Amino acid sequence: MPDNLSDLAAELALANRILAHEGVLDAFGHVSARHPTDPGRYLLSRSRSPLLIEPEDILEFTLDSEPVRPPKAHLYAERVIHGCIYAARPDVMAVVHHHAPAVMPFAIAGKPIVPVFHLGATVGEDLPFWDQHDEFGDTNLLVVKPEEGRSLARALGSHCAVLMNRHGATVVGGGLKELVSRAIFMCQNADYQLRALALGAPQPLYRGEIKLAGTLGLLPNVVTRTWEYWSMRLEAAGAMPPRPLAAKAPRRAVPKTSRVTPRERRKARRRR
Amino acid sequence: MPDNLSDLAAELALANRILAHEGVLDAFGHVSARHPTDPGRYLLSRSRSPLLIEPEDILEFTLDSEPVRPPKAHLYAERVIHGCIYAARPDVMAVVHHHAPAVMPFAIAGKPIVPVFHLGATVGEDLPFWDQHDEFGDTNLLVVKPEEGRSLARALGSHCAVLMNRHGATVVGGGLKELVSRAIFMCQNADYQLRALALGAPQPLYRGEIKLAGTLGLLPNVVTRTWEYWSMRLEAAGAMPPRPLAAKAPRRAVPKTSRVTPRERRKARRRR
Amino acid sequence: MPDNLSDLAAELALANRILAHEGVLDAFGHVSARHPTDPGRYLLSRSRSPLLIEPEDILEFTLDSEPVRPPKAHLYAERVIHGCIYAARPDVMAVVHHHAPAVMPFAIAGKPIVPVFHLGATVGEDLPFWDQHDEFGDTNLLVVKPEEGRSLARALGSHCAVLMNRHGATVVGGGLKELVSRAIFMCQNADYQLRALALGAPQPLYRGEIKLAGTLGLLPNVVTRTWEYWSMRLEAAGAMPPRPLAAKAPRRAVPKTSRVTPRERRKARRRR
Amino acid sequence: MPDNLSDLAAELALANRILAHEGVLDAFGHVSARHPTDPGRYLLSRSRSPLLIEPEDILEFTLDSEPVRPPKAHLYAERVIHGCIYAARPDVMAVVHHHAPAVMPFAIAGKPIVPVFHLGATVGEDLPFWDQHDEFGDTNLLVVKPEEGRSLARALGSHCAVLMNRHGATVVGGGLKELVSRAIFMCQNADYQLRALALGAPQPLYRGEIKLAGTLGLLPNVVTRTWEYWSMRLEAAGAMPPRPLAAKAPRRAVPKTSRVTPRERRKARRRR
Repeated sequence: MPDNLSDLAAELALANRILAHEGVLDAFGHVSARHPTDPGRYLLSRSRSPLLIEPEDILEFTLDSEPVRPPKAHLYAERVIHGCIYAARPDVMAVVHHHAPAVMPFAIAGKPIVPVFHLGATVGEDLPFWDQHDEFGDTNLLVVKPEEGRSLARALGSHCAVLMNRHGATVVGGGLKELVSRAIFMCQNADYQLRALALGAPQPLYRGEIKLAGTLGLLPNVVTRTWEYWSMRLEAAGAMPPRPLAAKAPRRAVPKTSRVTPRERRKARRRR
Repeated sequence: MPDNLSDLAAELALANRILAHEGVLDAFGHVSARHPTDPGRYLLSRSRSPLLIEPEDILEFTLDSEPVRPPKAHLYAERVIHGCIYAARPDVMAVVHHHAPAVMPFAIAGKPIVPVFHLGATVGEDLPFWDQHDEFGDTNLLVVKPEEGRSLARALGSHCAVLMNRHGATVVGGGLKELVSRAIFMCQNADYQLRALALGAPQPLYRGEIKLAGTLGLLPNVVTRTWEYWSMRLEAAGAMPPRPLAAKAPRRAVPKTSRVTPRERRKARRRR
Repeated sequence: MPDNLSDLAAELALANRILAHEGVLDAFGHVSARHPTDPGRYLLSRSRSPLLIEPEDILEFTLDSEPVRPPKAHLYAERVIHGCIYAARPDVMAVVHHHAPAVMPFAIAGKPIVPVFHLGATVGEDLPFWDQHDEFGDTNLLVVKPEEGRSLARALGSHCAVLMNRHGATVVGGGLKELVSRAIFMCQNADYQLRALALGAPQPLYRGEIKLAGTLGLLPNVVTRTWEYWSMRLEAAGAMPPRPLAAKAPRRAVPKTSRVTPRERRKARRRR
Repeated sequence: MPDNLSDLAAELALANRILAHEGVLDAFGHVSARHPTDPGRYLLSRSRSPLLIEPEDILEFTLDSEPVRPPKAHLYAERVIHGCIYAARPDVMAVVHHHAPAVMPFAIAGKPIVPVFHLGATVGEDLPFWDQHDEFGDTNLLVVKPEEGRSLARALGSHCAVLMNRHGATVVGGGLKELVSRAIFMCQNADYQLRALALGAPQPLYRGEIKLAGTLGLLPNVVTRTWEYWSMRLEAAGAMPPRPLAAKAPRRAVPKTSRVTPRERRKARRRR
């Protein structure tokens, strides 16, 4: 992850938009990153749908999930999810909470997601569940109190993700790019696992395979490829985050994919 | 909801288009709003597919579903759905009737939709069914007679929605934004509930959770976020309703999401 | 349907593209219309994917499915489907043969599609099946011989559609617009019926309801609305057929949906 | 397939993008072609997501999957899949390895894909499985060692495709266009077969039908139609590969589909 604040805010805005564009987030859900130099702080957007987040929406929070500066906008109600996990897990550098359609059947039926293809191994095995009702009784299911956040972090333990009954999931990573890959692969795994059921019992990966395939999402080969692909899809949809005001030089978030400019392409079309 | 007629007509056109773009409405279905100052009237478009509705298509109707002014265009055949519900339910300010693919399996199998995730609670519990055949025998299933509309309104009772066997659903709200959220969350809930069945029995929310989570869709935090998100998606698809003729000032229905104009973006692309 | 040849060719190209854009046709499938003045002829495109068909691709065929003029391009191998049905059914004015994903599970499992919602009634009840193997043994499943076409037409009988085992479906109509609606509603019905199965036995319409709802697709109210909607979606995708060379005046296939021109919209965006 | 290297590289880039755009490939998967004049070599892109591949990304490899020239970029880790199949199967001119969502349930449940509609016959019958664990025990499931590639090629035998347990599939063809069609039809077949299960036991094609329908994907009628259609869809998405630098004349990869230029269309829209 970038080690200066403004680059990290830009990458965080991009991560939010990629996860929204790939169907992990919708109007809801949020992604955070630990502060690049102060491990006692984290970065999270003001309350806004992820596909719309700009670098300038990113705010700093303490691990108590209090804004470092007085906020001028609504904040996410559930930011304790982030603060409590950063407090409990020094290795975690990025967190996403979501209600992706692919994982909802598992969160609702209370059935475990198990790795059924190599990339699904990046979420690891024995994914835990957390049922807010067990400890807190009737609530509106939002995770808003510090003790709710701490309880969720305990359920997460040393895992990469936790399913939240009747609510969604929370996924963690050692960096934003690892997190984005893991969250997307986990949704694909859930989708394949559900549909494989129609054919009979899905055969999950062997434990040894899960261990070995579990780091696939970190291979430079894989990270470079996925990040370029998801960014390109976002750009093709016209949904890249704006350049921060301070930036002077033209941004190059996505590698050049074509030597034909849009203008040349238009001209070529007319010629036919 | 806006308290003047032209702003409400604009919001109603937008609500129609959002619900169409989010997959609740298609060539069919219609959304209405109660008149902002005369509770004995309601606003509804002339007969037109929701994604195409413009503020100028919006007409006024009495609660008998008669047009206040002689119509120059086709009217929806099923407008008694709206009139009869406004007559029976003074608290209802907005109504949508739809055949969303997500709810159709439930309307066809006669199986209840139950809240299975927190946002699904906004439709409440014990959703009623209405089978037109029970009272009216063989029909073409359109709700066109006043007595059919009144029968449907009775089945709705004090609920937020009613499933119509072999036909679709009708959903009500205390305002257009609440209605739009509820209709979309109900479709998501139906989709998750159906797919969770493949994993075993879905575990619905506890009754206390449904009560507490039932108002989530009304939180300013939530309404602001969803409305901005759904409007942005509609605008990205080039499907925003046109400005009414009277409007002089540039409209700002969607908050600014980028400081880079499309022109600058094009220039930046060429530079690469 | 238009009563002159060039207008009918334009409507036929549009019908092909609408059915492709709505997911009934893909690289394959074809739509025909009976000749407007000579009932012993029909119009069908040269062999081309439906989304690409232009009015100038439309050719005339005799009911023996021979081209009236020597063809300069590949012809569809399965055009006897059209010729044999026009010969057997004087009431039929338009035919589509397709492999829509929605109907394929029924064609494969050999299970009947039954009307499960009001618009699904437009395909009628007791839809027949036709299994090419019964009469012709092993084939490549294409319907290419006159006797295969006649056998299919016999299986269709007086119905509105016939399912073809391990192959697809053929649907007929009294006109192109009726045909387009019926084909789309049939796909929706198949999709809802399949998914309703996950909830238990779907409850089909009562026989009396099927009769009464069967003509819904012909209501001017409905035809106007659907045709405008599907055309607008096609236009928004940039996939409208080109104007025929002869046409001088600007075409107005889709009613004006916005008083804000694209140019004004771009200007308004820049201003923000 | 083209018999000169630069045209084949262009067609290979296009094949990659078509398969990505049609949902067979995503961030992962790769397509190769045998060298047009040296059967002991094959062409494959540098490590990159298929939708982004340009002709200039295409590199030459020996059948040991070593790059002919020292590479300047990351290479796909799994290129032995291609080399070992070209070595074992002189008739194979093109190979794709993928994790298409449509086939994943079968690769996970270990259940065979059988031809259930005429175009599905192009993958043939008795498709084999290959389980990397059987011979190699715990791995990360990537096929990276020569002995793994050779084992996979043995499992493929003389078939057109092999399903890889908990991983994906590999499909081969006598040319790039045949390969693209086969891979797409195989995904459609898998999707239809899975959904037909909800209705009861799918009825596969008779063995004689599979033989006769198995070459449908090679009919000029079919190849011309599909290639035009898939290319047009790719172009409409703005995702055609760039022209190679050397090319001087305007490319005409997609036949002219409209006599109205985009510019005329814009003008026509403004006029309304």
